[in-house]
Amino acid sequence: MEGSERVRRRSILHNCMIVTMDDQERVFKDGAIVIEGDKIIAINQSSLILKEFGSSNTGDVDIINLNGKIHDCKFILYIGLINTHVHTSQQLGRGIADDVDLMTWLHKRIWPYESNMTEEDSFISTLLCGIELIHSGVTCFAEAGGQHVSGMARAVELLGLRACLAKSTMDCGEGLPEEWGVQSTDYCIQSQKELYAKHHNTADGRIRMWFGIRQIMNATDKLLFETRDAAKELSTGIHMHVAEIAYENEFVTETREVDHGTVTYLEKIELLRPNLLAAHSVWVNDTEIGFLSKAGVKVSHCPAAAMRMLGFAPVKEMLDAGICVSLGTDGAPSNNRMSMVDEMYLASLINKGRETYLKGTTDPTALPAETVLKMATINGAKSVLWDNEIGSLEVCKKADMVIVDPFSWSMLPVHDCISSLVYSLRTENIEAVMCNGQWIMKDRKIVNIDEGQVFSLAKEASHELLKRAGITIPSRMNFI
Amino acid sequence: MEGSERVRRRSILHNCMIVTMDDQERVFKDGAIVIEGDKIIAINQSSLILKEFGSSNTGDVDIINLNGKIHDCKFILYIGLINTHVHTSQQLGRGIADDVDLMTWLHKRIWPYESNMTEEDSFISTLLCGIELIHSGVTCFAEAGGQHVSGMARAVELLGLRACLAKSTMDCGEGLPEEWGVQSTDYCIQSQKELYAKHHNTADGRIRMWFGIRQIMNATDKLLFETRDAAKELSTGIHMHVAEIAYENEFVTETREVDHGTVTYLEKIELLRPNLLAAHSVWVNDTEIGFLSKAGVKVSHCPAAAMRMLGFAPVKEMLDAGICVSLGTDGAPSNNRMSMVDEMYLASLINKGRETYLKGTTDPTALPAETVLKMATINGAKSVLWDNEIGSLEVCKKADMVIVDPFSWSMLPVHDCISSLVYSLRTENIEAVMCNGQWIMKDRKIVNIDEGQVFSLAKEASHELLKRAGITIPSRMNFI
Repeated sequence: MEGSERVRRRSILHNCMIVTMDDQERVFKDGAIVIEGDKIIAINQSSLILKEFGSSNTGDVDIINLNGKIHDCKFILYIGLINTHVHTSQQLGRGIADDVDLMTWLHKRIWPYESNMTEEDSFISTLLCGIELIHSGVTCFAEAGGQHVSGMARAVELLGLRACLAKSTMDCGEGLPEEWGVQSTDYCIQSQKELYAKHHNTADGRIRMWFGIRQIMNATDKLLFETRDAAKELSTGIHMHVAEIAYENEFVTETREVDHGTVTYLEKIELLRPNLLAAHSVWVNDTEIGFLSKAGVKVSHCPAAAMRMLGFAPVKEMLDAGICVSLGTDGAPSNNRMSMVDEMYLASLINKGRETYLKGTTDPTALPAETVLKMATINGAKSVLWDNEIGSLEVCKKADMVIVDPFSWSMLPVHDCISSLVYSLRTENIEAVMCNGQWIMKDRKIVNIDEGQVFSLAKEASHELLKRAGITIPSRMNFI
Repeated sequence: MEGSERVRRRSILHNCMIVTMDDQERVFKDGAIVIEGDKIIAINQSSLILKEFGSSNTGDVDIINLNGKIHDCKFILYIGLINTHVHTSQQLGRGIADDVDLMTWLHKRIWPYESNMTEEDSFISTLLCGIELIHSGVTCFAEAGGQHVSGMARAVELLGLRACLAKSTMDCGEGLPEEWGVQSTDYCIQSQKELYAKHHNTADGRIRMWFGIRQIMNATDKLLFETRDAAKELSTGIHMHVAEIAYENEFVTETREVDHGTVTYLEKIELLRPNLLAAHSVWVNDTEIGFLSKAGVKVSHCPAAAMRMLGFAPVKEMLDAGICVSLGTDGAPSNNRMSMVDEMYLASLINKGRETYLKGTTDPTALPAETVLKMATINGAKSVLWDNEIGSLEVCKKADMVIVDPFSWSMLPVHDCISSLVYSLRTENIEAVMCNGQWIMKDRKIVNIDEGQVFSLAKEASHELLKRAGITIPSRMNFI
């Protein structure tokens, strides 16, 4: 694996626009960045960087000019996007639950699918999902929770991505497939501690282990308490679906004796803490927004899944209350597209449109592009408790970044650089992706694996999995 | 232009899945299609087609196997998409009006932009827009109305697309740039008749001329009446923005003495007819939905623009009332992405989410994939009054079609073919596009022009245009 070379080698990328996402929101119009090993060691105007670092004649420096090769158009370099809610194990299930109601979605499609997965399926699914994430500029993701963490970890290590993995954990609930229903609370906690011991801080530090709670309707109080304490003990995060549907709040109000819903209950039991990543958080009232804000809870907003399955989260209100809201794609059966590029576009649209119902007309100024870009980058880093090392292009941070070629039908003309990156950019524009100082995509080709081979494996594995799970999809037209 | 060869040459495309969108909703799992000149002359199972047509040894037959070249995965062939509302002249203005309120959008950005365009700008803008349309599988579009129809027509002819063009027509209204305000009603009608004489049925029949009315707040009654009558006289269509914003209805209620809004007034003056293509139609009540349905008016739903600028149209209600609703992208400053691929995805999401405000929860079954695909194809053809020749793959119809390679990270696995085409497919999957029997994109490269050259022209022209129009875009971050 060229270990020593990888650590020492220095690269200079220059003659490009650099969107840093640092505290001063600096954008270098003609910038350069110097990378050594897995870190950024300098960032500044091209001329200054070349003067200071470009004269090295040790032969150990790659100097890469990021002005468009054929046409005179600067590439844009920005920080790797962070997807804070994705079910990588569900990638093989893309299209198994489109246009069906929520109960069919869960009981007839997703649970049979997930409970029939093998670790190998999870490996292949995460490979396929990871390929899509990389093509859409993602360098780090937070796994929402699947069954076979070791399969995921293998794929993440291979692809070169950064991830906070979690196991989907449930110790109660109605209608669960048999093999899930019998898991004791003790087993749930113990198995996650073992996963932590096995995977945390592996893959050159790119993998971290978190605790997972599927959702409150599948968690006893004991599981909630012990997860809270175990995560504290190991100084790691908790990833949980929170206030996804209106029914969830009714269920909690009835069974847990609180006056509103999940967030109110989590406040009561002191699970609202800065290490909680609350996915969706659609059905929260003003008081609960106050709770989330005060506790420093992070929220992952998943625009496509919200529009399709859950409802419109009060994102503007949460941001105004100072909550760190980031962006997630959710899983393939809830969205179809695991693309942060599309999710940024949707985040802005959905939150402009949502105002129609509050004010009688859309608010085209709501959730502007710069806010969306922060959600997908620095807020994502804070959400995964990793903003000391990722989330912006700054000296001493990890070299996680994306190179964009704006010279194409999908982006031109670029009159407003930041809004172009958020609204116009398509995955076609993403030329290369670096994670932890290593190229993981170059010339729009994944570096560490053969994509075609993964596609073939995924086709076969998903076909077999559906057969095993007894899932059949009605045909929508007259197939002959 | 190889006239005689083009007319006579016969092509057989076989060994692919064919989604016909015909009345029986047939999908051939292993189908073939025969094209002669600009028409489809046969469509059936591959084996039957090859038996009947494949043995020709005249040398005049191209036989193209559409099983994936490298991997064993059938391509999917479907009918060219129809974008029923697009401002091709606004493509150079992508990004000039992101995240601004409606009055800034119109008075400070769009009107200065449009009123400063030259015919050459319009030509370049339509080229750039057309390239994006083709990459997103579009073979036919309805122009919403720009200033320089001859520039558009030149671009459409060159690219090989099919289009219903229209001039943006206004004979009154407040705050218009001076050169527009002075156009008399007579001039408006007369100039459109001249454009009809010059362009209708040109470019091998691919171009048709329609009448345009920008919107009711910029139209005198005289213009409305005379447009109605002139379109009838020439047997062509009228493209008009209808009930876009709540204020429009208030304006009409006050000035035109009707009890609701634009649709009610258009009903009163008998402008609601089968040849009216009403763009947006967001602010319509139940009575007005009844009027539109009874009159056979076509509605172009533009999901992204609706979410961002206008509000949520009652699409489900309109479809339930039997109205032919199709899909449009609107212009680049209202959407950023001129991609029907994204618009299909959005149409489904937005209309599932919209139910939240009607029912308290989303309806994941609303606007299913097959409905969205109809809206983008056969409903599009009906909307542009061309369904006798386009909108489905059938014998005797024009050969307008799209070839999809599903073997990639963006679509796999394909468990539900129709939903995959609508929700998962990305522009990366679109390999080739044929319009009127001619390939206009092959191997993801536009056939008839050099894309890079258009990009360079567009960069320069748009920069000059903004300078001329005095439009400056505030920077969102700290550019240094």
